[in-house]
Amino acid sequence: MKLSKLAFQVTKNPPANADTVNHKLLVQAGFVRQLMAGVYTYTPMGLKVLRNIENIIREEMNAVGGQEILMPALHPKINHQTTGSWNNIDVLFKLKSRTDKDYALGHSHEEIVTPLAKELINSYKDLPLALYQIQWKYRDELRSKSGILRGREFFMKDMYSFHADQKDFEKFYNNVKDAYLRIFKKLGLTAKVTEASGGSFTQKISYEFMVLTDAGEDDILYCDECNYCVNNEIAKVKEGDRCPKCGAPLKMGRASEVGNVFDLGQKFAKDFDLTFANQAGEKNYPIMGCYGIGVSRSMGVIVEKYNDAKGIIWPASISPFTVSLISLNGAEEYALKIYETLQKNNINVLLDDRSESAGSKFAAADLMGFPVRLVISPRNGEKIEWKKRDQEASELIDLETVLERLKTA
Amino acid sequence: MKLSKLAFQVTKNPPANADTVNHKLLVQAGFVRQLMAGVYTYTPMGLKVLRNIENIIREEMNAVGGQEILMPALHPKINHQTTGSWNNIDVLFKLKSRTDKDYALGHSHEEIVTPLAKELINSYKDLPLALYQIQWKYRDELRSKSGILRGREFFMKDMYSFHADQKDFEKFYNNVKDAYLRIFKKLGLTAKVTEASGGSFTQKISYEFMVLTDAGEDDILYCDECNYCVNNEIAKVKEGDRCPKCGAPLKMGRASEVGNVFDLGQKFAKDFDLTFANQAGEKNYPIMGCYGIGVSRSMGVIVEKYNDAKGIIWPASISPFTVSLISLNGAEEYALKIYETLQKNNINVLLDDRSESAGSKFAAADLMGFPVRLVISPRNGEKIEWKKRDQEASELIDLETVLERLKTA
Repeated sequence: MKLSKLAFQVTKNPPANADTVNHKLLVQAGFVRQLMAGVYTYTPMGLKVLRNIENIIREEMNAVGGQEILMPALHPKINHQTTGSWNNIDVLFKLKSRTDKDYALGHSHEEIVTPLAKELINSYKDLPLALYQIQWKYRDELRSKSGILRGREFFMKDMYSFHADQKDFEKFYNNVKDAYLRIFKKLGLTAKVTEASGGSFTQKISYEFMVLTDAGEDDILYCDECNYCVNNEIAKVKEGDRCPKCGAPLKMGRASEVGNVFDLGQKFAKDFDLTFANQAGEKNYPIMGCYGIGVSRSMGVIVEKYNDAKGIIWPASISPFTVSLISLNGAEEYALKIYETLQKNNINVLLDDRSESAGSKFAAADLMGFPVRLVISPRNGEKIEWKKRDQEASELIDLETVLERLKTA
Repeated sequence: MKLSKLAFQVTKNPPANADTVNHKLLVQAGFVRQLMAGVYTYTPMGLKVLRNIENIIREEMNAVGGQEILMPALHPKINHQTTGSWNNIDVLFKLKSRTDKDYALGHSHEEIVTPLAKELINSYKDLPLALYQIQWKYRDELRSKSGILRGREFFMKDMYSFHADQKDFEKFYNNVKDAYLRIFKKLGLTAKVTEASGGSFTQKISYEFMVLTDAGEDDILYCDECNYCVNNEIAKVKEGDRCPKCGAPLKMGRASEVGNVFDLGQKFAKDFDLTFANQAGEKNYPIMGCYGIGVSRSMGVIVEKYNDAKGIIWPASISPFTVSLISLNGAEEYALKIYETLQKNNINVLLDDRSESAGSKFAAADLMGFPVRLVISPRNGEKIEWKKRDQEASELIDLETVLERLKTA
């Protein structure tokens, strides 16, 4: 792609209402545009990041045996009345058709997936079953702030699993936990598995996957010596107390919840009368689990973690482009040749071919934050300036070395 | 994939309320489930079909210079007040937040894309510009029937283009028209370019891409000798009249609109005060075009066109699997070996490993409708029975020939 042709480019003016780094940088670098609080458009570059995150999640969900489906966002009232969410979930958006039918917008999909699963589950032989989707959710948040960290419309992976007993659920939960930790690692995030309350879904303990960031909305108590971590909301310990697991002093930090796991027990199965026959032929309600990852929120958290005074520093796994190729005055022809060579080698490159100053091009590359910056200058002959976004040093190398490094990167 | 593990399989019972072939077959074959009228869940197989159609469309939209973005479904009232659609579009879903803010659900995205384009367009040098998305739309239809042909929640590709003058719009429109005809051809559909009224968007003439099918909701007058076609709503000719272009007698037929093109003129640019400076430095409103393709509707129309008494007959381009591999009693081990060999050769195969009768497996394969059926039977030794879904004849061939044929298919 040539930057001169790209819709939505870097802008010098930060958005007036930006309260967080992700909001400011994602707008300035040309990845999102705010339509209203909590509701964003994703530009060509922003959409690529979302898709890259989505693909990393999909691969791991398929690996644990999840099957991808796509459920609607428009729900009939009756499903939410059946579970009580129609009256009890305050973030539920409600609307009426012109023929006076009541609908809800999906804030989560227990109300849809449980009746679907009734068709699939008759006997213990049909268990376990795990269905997931990657889809937009709607929540009527009182305050929607922090850029794409807390959206009224946001992109989420939600998986639902069904099990014959608690033991099988816990086995599956452990597989999903490992998959989640692999996903967040691939995304460049260190997620802490945090004990929390089940929230509106269930009274049971749930687990949250928390990433430390000042832009977050939760406080967690965690131990640096072991993996102990608890949401401050339910903590029986406080900052400075000894870790219940290893005795080291506990720390307190602000964090954002990028994923969660709920043990739903038999609540939704009972609500929708979803039963299965066990080996003795007796009817039983399956145990349900629910597993979420905030896809758009993860994108925001990644920006909160990976940035400096000059802009974003995307992890290679999700960067929309691998290379910022800068063509300086007088090197246009050679730069175009390098651009075409990179493309032939399947390297995802953005060529800055705009009529801008060198300084402005360097600033744009730093702001957009792709892993590698290559500069083609008439002063350097056939040599190419190589610089990684997360390092200060640059060096002059030949094309062959550039290709070698990008292939093994 | 093994059929025994697949969520949502073939069912003998057609849905009670199915009024069309696509509704009946897509449910029976395990591709969709109806949540309520006009709102469907896509199963693992149904989702694959949607994604295959989406990818064919994306490739062609990129080729005409469209840039993919993703706009929200939740819109602020003010945008729809600005264009008049808040009061004039009867299918607009409206809702309120708990803090009494008014929102609309996106029925189309002129109201969002035009303000976005204001940032991108300042001079004639910024034109033409084409932005598109592939995204869910919401319309409060009075009657939502015909399976996935007319949804209240449906999947759509919508592109919007901006031009310095009418001539440039018409040039771009012609490129898009050719791209649309290529898309529909790849989908196995013969689309007729049909003159129509602009509907609620504009008073100008628009073009619809119509596919003849009894499940459609439009009547078109068309000529079999040339490409003349007009929507009966605006036709000044009637069935049996001579074609205004070639003189042959006109036919009338029921059709479904799978795509459309609107000349939006300067309406939305004027509504949002979107201007550009022309070469003389004078301010002007750009001409806008809007180009839709119904992704989920196309899936439904394809089923309406490609089926027989036994089930669906998917075009290879969008079939979720290329091969139905049937393992008969006593051939399980060899079938598994063939399954693994096909997978190693990157052939998309569904192995029917269920404990069902041969007849039931043949019926399932016909109902699901993948292009090729392979049968592994203990009676045939190492030979494999090859049959195409759209042909009657079967033959016994060896594995090498199977692989050769599938590679060139």
